[in-house]
Amino acid sequence: MPRLRLALAQVDTVVGDLAANVARARAAVAEAAAAGADLVALPEMCVTGYPVEDLALRPSFVAASRQAVADLARVVAEDGHGDVVVVVGYLDQDVDAAGRDVQRTGLPSLASQNCAAVLHGGEVVARYAKNHLPNSGVFDEQRIFAPGTHGQRVVVRGVDVAVLVCEDLWRDGGVTAQLAEAEHDPGLVLVVNASPYEQGKHRVRYDLCRSRAAETGCTVAYVNLVGGQDELVFDGQSLVVAPDGEVLARAPQFVEHVLVVDLDLPAGATDEGPGRLYDRVVVHADAGPEPQGRLRPVPVEPVEECEEVYRALVLGLRDYARKNGFTDVVLGLSGGIDSALVATLAVDALGAEHVHTVAMPTRYSSEHSLSDAAELAHRQGTRHRVVPVQPMVDAFVDGLGLAGLAEENVQARVRGVVLMGISNSEGQLVLAPGNKSELATGYSTVYGDAVGGFAPIKDVVKTLVWRLARWRNADALSRGEQAPIPESSIDKAPSAELRPGQVDSDSLPDYELLDAVVDGYVVGDLGHADLVARGASEELVDRVVRMVDRAEWKRRQYPPGTKVSAKAFGRDRRLPVTNRWVEPAARD
Amino acid sequence: MPRLRLALAQVDTVVGDLAANVARARAAVAEAAAAGADLVALPEMCVTGYPVEDLALRPSFVAASRQAVADLARVVAEDGHGDVVVVVGYLDQDVDAAGRDVQRTGLPSLASQNCAAVLHGGEVVARYAKNHLPNSGVFDEQRIFAPGTHGQRVVVRGVDVAVLVCEDLWRDGGVTAQLAEAEHDPGLVLVVNASPYEQGKHRVRYDLCRSRAAETGCTVAYVNLVGGQDELVFDGQSLVVAPDGEVLARAPQFVEHVLVVDLDLPAGATDEGPGRLYDRVVVHADAGPEPQGRLRPVPVEPVEECEEVYRALVLGLRDYARKNGFTDVVLGLSGGIDSALVATLAVDALGAEHVHTVAMPTRYSSEHSLSDAAELAHRQGTRHRVVPVQPMVDAFVDGLGLAGLAEENVQARVRGVVLMGISNSEGQLVLAPGNKSELATGYSTVYGDAVGGFAPIKDVVKTLVWRLARWRNADALSRGEQAPIPESSIDKAPSAELRPGQVDSDSLPDYELLDAVVDGYVVGDLGHADLVARGASEELVDRVVRMVDRAEWKRRQYPPGTKVSAKAFGRDRRLPVTNRWVEPAARD
Repeated sequence: MPRLRLALAQVDTVVGDLAANVARARAAVAEAAAAGADLVALPEMCVTGYPVEDLALRPSFVAASRQAVADLARVVAEDGHGDVVVVVGYLDQDVDAAGRDVQRTGLPSLASQNCAAVLHGGEVVARYAKNHLPNSGVFDEQRIFAPGTHGQRVVVRGVDVAVLVCEDLWRDGGVTAQLAEAEHDPGLVLVVNASPYEQGKHRVRYDLCRSRAAETGCTVAYVNLVGGQDELVFDGQSLVVAPDGEVLARAPQFVEHVLVVDLDLPAGATDEGPGRLYDRVVVHADAGPEPQGRLRPVPVEPVEECEEVYRALVLGLRDYARKNGFTDVVLGLSGGIDSALVATLAVDALGAEHVHTVAMPTRYSSEHSLSDAAELAHRQGTRHRVVPVQPMVDAFVDGLGLAGLAEENVQARVRGVVLMGISNSEGQLVLAPGNKSELATGYSTVYGDAVGGFAPIKDVVKTLVWRLARWRNADALSRGEQAPIPESSIDKAPSAELRPGQVDSDSLPDYELLDAVVDGYVVGDLGHADLVARGASEELVDRVVRMVDRAEWKRRQYPPGTKVSAKAFGRDRRLPVTNRWVEPAARD
Repeated sequence: MPRLRLALAQVDTVVGDLAANVARARAAVAEAAAAGADLVALPEMCVTGYPVEDLALRPSFVAASRQAVADLARVVAEDGHGDVVVVVGYLDQDVDAAGRDVQRTGLPSLASQNCAAVLHGGEVVARYAKNHLPNSGVFDEQRIFAPGTHGQRVVVRGVDVAVLVCEDLWRDGGVTAQLAEAEHDPGLVLVVNASPYEQGKHRVRYDLCRSRAAETGCTVAYVNLVGGQDELVFDGQSLVVAPDGEVLARAPQFVEHVLVVDLDLPAGATDEGPGRLYDRVVVHADAGPEPQGRLRPVPVEPVEECEEVYRALVLGLRDYARKNGFTDVVLGLSGGIDSALVATLAVDALGAEHVHTVAMPTRYSSEHSLSDAAELAHRQGTRHRVVPVQPMVDAFVDGLGLAGLAEENVQARVRGVVLMGISNSEGQLVLAPGNKSELATGYSTVYGDAVGGFAPIKDVVKTLVWRLARWRNADALSRGEQAPIPESSIDKAPSAELRPGQVDSDSLPDYELLDAVVDGYVVGDLGHADLVARGASEELVDRVVRMVDRAEWKRRQYPPGTKVSAKAFGRDRRLPVTNRWVEPAARD
């Protein structure tokens, strides 16, 4: 049984920066080669970054990706690693099909494909195009890619390796079913992925790999992208699962890592040509000498839920800022829990000296709002300032004669103008502090607290905001550090402080009740009867469903944030703005 | 040769308001029946409105649509029109396939389908599911619908009518190729559509109908939806084209209309059963007595380009306001051409008494900015007010020590806060005045002039703004009315008036040059070499392409508007925000 030294290189790429991505891949291959790897796998669309959306439809971009993957093959060989086999995701096209159809636009089709290249000896020796294109949730690949129709095997040290891309592993009755029935069993199923993080998704991914390993009778090696990209966070946590379900290796989550592991795998029928449904390229027909030593690093265990979500949010924020060219962020500190958590995430992501906090009191601001904000800034060392905004508010209220809700909103909007003014003067990215419970129900001010270029906790319901804050404080205390978030910010009754004595519970149901319905309706796509069956009252369900349906328009004016669940808002919940449909209140 | 009296009923529906849509369809059928029609066609997804986006994935909505189409059949019969055959678009599901697959979400698939029902005698006697699902540009139907796999014929007064839905007509080698090769020729191809307006699209649609009529040897009848829906405008202009290309009938554009026309059509082989690729339902095997008289209304000629675009914008604005529950709009009047055109569109859409205009001068505002705004308000009778905003601006500039670009932006943002304050107090929809040239290049202030719920001219380049204004004035004069737009607003050099002596040409290329490149790059998807080949300098192309690529982030904070071209922004140009790809400057 040949022993293969496999490296799964989970790297953080930047969409569109092909030169940087090639350099990153080159460094990862060098690290793997130094560890003696025979075969190195890099993530789906590693060369281009992922997702590329409509860039896949630009001829110049497809051509650049094809060139970049050829460049990567060449520089890997120049580095002396030409004998290492590299499997890497990139954008290519079906050259035979390209130009055959003329699109409705009048332009010829590019027939772009989501591909994995096999590199060896300075050349691209094979290419595989993803057969199954996901087209639901955050994915719309059928819009931009032409599917591949053929499998690809590559024989490395006598092991017949089947190459797959992401969705190919998910589809029942698809490529993996073909593998299970193929005339020659592969010795390893190698899947390159760009699989976004969701809460607890590691369990789903492990179950998938285990079931496919059982279905095919093969070890499954799963390499995943890492890094933040707009609303998505890719969490790495690359994985190798044996046919019996044993986790042979698992990489850490949310960080770049080259996982190197020795696998004892069945020898393939390497004297055979291509099969009926696949091509085959033979790099090493024989197993050759065994690698030195035996690398079997202890699999990294998943962390508990709060830590996982917290680290996803930090990575999403850090990469959004960094990849869009910002070193610094600015946000308003109200003394409340949302802005306190956002500030803490920002300090953890970028360092306290890059986080600018602004307290903006009005006449309705409580004493503790200022003192709690100052205390957080003091504990964490942010660059803090106080900008009293009552003069600006008075100018509007007096000039326009505003009262009631209009007066409440103008306070929030004045704060938005202040933050944008600071940003325009000093160059920081403005962070919007809204949480998912508020946004889902429309409890926020458009052009007010919604102002910003990124909303770090837009997919975090209020009850989880509190849990994350408490976890972060407890984690600091457990390491002998000071708790970063003032306890009173966590414990006080939430209030927007836009009128005297205002608290959130004037306008919203209790957050424990609200969040359960928001989760069921927004994330779970449940109807009225299902929501009631989960324990909510009919009255509560009706109230929350109405609020959520009405809030769509506001979210259109809201910046992107980091997704931590299957469904947040925006692209993954596409509803018409102009729409009279009302989810029925009666059981359907 | 049987004579069939056909009615094409182009109606304006509201997404999600099934009861209202059924009522509208019922009234259209009654009007057609009163004119003696044998067969009435209503648009694609008429019962639900179009597009429904992810509402198609809600079980309660699918069930409601199925019920609504059955209700329509019943009430049409109750009205005494049970013998009229009605073909109407609605949302249904493939009941056999529903629930078979479990989606990644863990929910069973609905297998929703974009369908046309055939109604007769109070019942749904047949249903056809759209075979070809468009998935590019503004369409993403493969995400939400399962395709149909079978054709549908219905025999009416001895004529064998093939029923198609929209994209079925567009696809080469698809359903129409099957019709051309079918064992029995249909006598009429009847297509129900929801085809969005684009500049000059009537030529594309006529060419399509003519080529399919020639391919199948059949008369093609094309009924189209009318009305505004978020960024789309459906323009009606239903059409009947003979096999030789003659336009037998054409309805007007942008208005509801029931087009009734007598067609002499070949008799079908009505004693045959269903064909290999289609089902058939026979309503009237024989031609029966000829209808009284002969209805052949003169085809309505398309109007010229400026009028067409103008009317599209008026309908888009009127329906966005109306369908979202607004009677009134509010906007800032700068004295410049963009806000002048938007105000004029609003007056034409909603009536002057529903249009609230606000002049918001600062110290940099010119004398003519106030007088031109007042003159427009006077000529058109809008509800006009002047809100001097220098006090609010000073409060920010003094409080924050702003200068330069930050000071410029704060003026625009103060105006945004004023408009939103008025809106919150009085309930109008705020209109954003930005044009496509500005938005494409990022020449606008986020949370400033971008503030609003709808942006009527976001898909109109600046040179077209001027042409539309001149056309509107000339059209008024030709009718003996006063020109609505002050001539000086059209003739003056465009300026944001955010600093002394500022003009747009400080920051932007000449608009004639700019708009040509914006059009080629944004709408035409052309690369660098193609743009230069069209006559722009390399330097200009580089400059504009850089501006357009950089402006994506701003557009995320921008409200919807009305599309008048194949590509504007937003859904139809999906690019990652976090992205380093730069369109190559060198010829590719």
